[in-house]
Amino acid sequence: MRVHWEGKVLDLRAVWMEGTTVRLIDQRRLPLELRFFDAHDYREVAHAIRDMAVRGAPSIGATAAYGMAQAALQGEDLEAVAKALKATRPTAHDLFFAVDVMLGSIAKGAVPNLAAEVYAEDLVRRCKAIGEWGEPLLGPGARVLTHCNAGALASLDYGTALAPIRLAQDKGKNPFVFVDETRPRFQGARLTAWELAQEGIPHCVIADGAGGFLMQRGEVDLVMVGADRITASGDFANKIGTYEKAVVAHENGIPFYVAAPQSTFDFTLTRGSEIPIEERAPEEVLEVEGVRVAPRESEARNPAFDVTPAKYVRGFVTDVGVLKPGELGRLKVTPRVPL
Amino acid sequence: MRVHWEGKVLDLRAVWMEGTTVRLIDQRRLPLELRFFDAHDYREVAHAIRDMAVRGAPSIGATAAYGMAQAALQGEDLEAVAKALKATRPTAHDLFFAVDVMLGSIAKGAVPNLAAEVYAEDLVRRCKAIGEWGEPLLGPGARVLTHCNAGALASLDYGTALAPIRLAQDKGKNPFVFVDETRPRFQGARLTAWELAQEGIPHCVIADGAGGFLMQRGEVDLVMVGADRITASGDFANKIGTYEKAVVAHENGIPFYVAAPQSTFDFTLTRGSEIPIEERAPEEVLEVEGVRVAPRESEARNPAFDVTPAKYVRGFVTDVGVLKPGELGRLKVTPRVPL
Repeated sequence: MRVHWEGKVLDLRAVWMEGTTVRLIDQRRLPLELRFFDAHDYREVAHAIRDMAVRGAPSIGATAAYGMAQAALQGEDLEAVAKALKATRPTAHDLFFAVDVMLGSIAKGAVPNLAAEVYAEDLVRRCKAIGEWGEPLLGPGARVLTHCNAGALASLDYGTALAPIRLAQDKGKNPFVFVDETRPRFQGARLTAWELAQEGIPHCVIADGAGGFLMQRGEVDLVMVGADRITASGDFANKIGTYEKAVVAHENGIPFYVAAPQSTFDFTLTRGSEIPIEERAPEEVLEVEGVRVAPRESEARNPAFDVTPAKYVRGFVTDVGVLKPGELGRLKVTPRVPL
Repeated sequence: MRVHWEGKVLDLRAVWMEGTTVRLIDQRRLPLELRFFDAHDYREVAHAIRDMAVRGAPSIGATAAYGMAQAALQGEDLEAVAKALKATRPTAHDLFFAVDVMLGSIAKGAVPNLAAEVYAEDLVRRCKAIGEWGEPLLGPGARVLTHCNAGALASLDYGTALAPIRLAQDKGKNPFVFVDETRPRFQGARLTAWELAQEGIPHCVIADGAGGFLMQRGEVDLVMVGADRITASGDFANKIGTYEKAVVAHENGIPFYVAAPQSTFDFTLTRGSEIPIEERAPEEVLEVEGVRVAPRESEARNPAFDVTPAKYVRGFVTDVGVLKPGELGRLKVTPRVPL
């Protein structure tokens, strides 16, 4: 991804490895500060995922893949490391997928850091392909609404939902993006807006409740989001608030697309109700920038994800094409090797 | 409304008049500070409305009624004051209604401050009646989702959407309230949660995108919101995000109610698309607690209200009963005297 930094234009990924250090853009600091987080062992990798220095299902997966490689190089007990990494966050499928892929590869004798690089390169290639398949969905001047961050930060490079938008911009189609700010952690206002600003793609941030207003007024041509886990039926989990966007888009006849690489598909599950949903600390809702917003006496619920039924999805933008929910069986999803 | 303050329990209204001073609870300071705002002339009244020291359609109306009385007592040109007050905010019908009622009353020789008191008492009586009509809609342990603040702060006392909840609590029905935080200004997290905390009504604050998740899981029995303007067809304007809740509630078979006094009904309009929608400063979205959240380069759209079509409304909880959208003609809405 393109990053303007100290007068230079860098080409960065969300996560990479240098020697035995897993390095990542610290997403907790963006957009006002570009800082890097260095994880020197698997505990620090686990911390980076748990504390959301890195987030976004595919990037979480890649981080875990690098973490597994690092642990192998450092002579750690890989089964224990796999368990520790899998325990960091429950919803994103890519985490489990990546850890199992790495376990399998290393068991077969792969060089750990090379196996992780193969995983990362494969992911980036898939995201690029998602962009190519998705770009034709955007007409000239298309106005796209997106939720949370499904950009390069969330998937190493290009993005999932943002990949088609980036390509449409490169092709001169002049897309415009409505960015849901995405409470409680503002991944839209902070991260998606930052990526779009870096690329010079016109956009505006909106409160999470404003998308329906814009859809109703005919100001949104399509909705494109990422996913944290997609089941065989096409029911999928994504950042809290996605479900409401899908229902309202459906009600307004606006196509709703989900962009994701293979690692996000979990064909061991059939229905969305089987997906474990993370509930995070209430303080994320009750405080903003460290300032208490709600009364001291008030409590909060903070589900981090919701589940959108397949019937609201016009298409899944994958690296092998745009598939309807009923066509997901055509995907050759590598089965996860169970721990 | 019950307010715990410096060890005492006070019974306050959102706005009142002392001599020629219009006094109000400064809603910009809540929940962490209980401060009062004194408006000494109509310009300060206009400022209080524009800057949202007072907000909520019925409370805005009552503030304007007091402002008109104050202006009359201070010998101001009432037509000019009426214009100035009406120019403060465009969406809430109560503002226009109250100013016109006061113009008409004063023209007929009413004592200005008494006329304003009659307006305020009438509003409070209607809100109490809304509570009585609405309370039977809540079963024992009812879990109600509400958006923004449609409480006593928004309507002098009792509330509109919160009036039935208060009464259900008094009757020992143990209601539970899911409070949408209501970005960008957090009227839910700040004001509704504060009112519920003052009353000891169990509640939790949720991000605006989380309501659909809870509805889908069967954790919400009904949705109850206020309104800023209701047209003859039943299409209505309310805080941005209301439309999405209505659509998602409908999709999940959850009854959606709108609670409002007579002053919010504007039968000069037929369709929701005729309601003027205020767009507020982008900084409300881009900054939180004075801290920039989005990148410097990013812009924002900030519509303060949206319009919900009547078809999503199970009933309007008014002071004369719960009416279906098609039954609104039964309301004896006093026509506004045009300026």
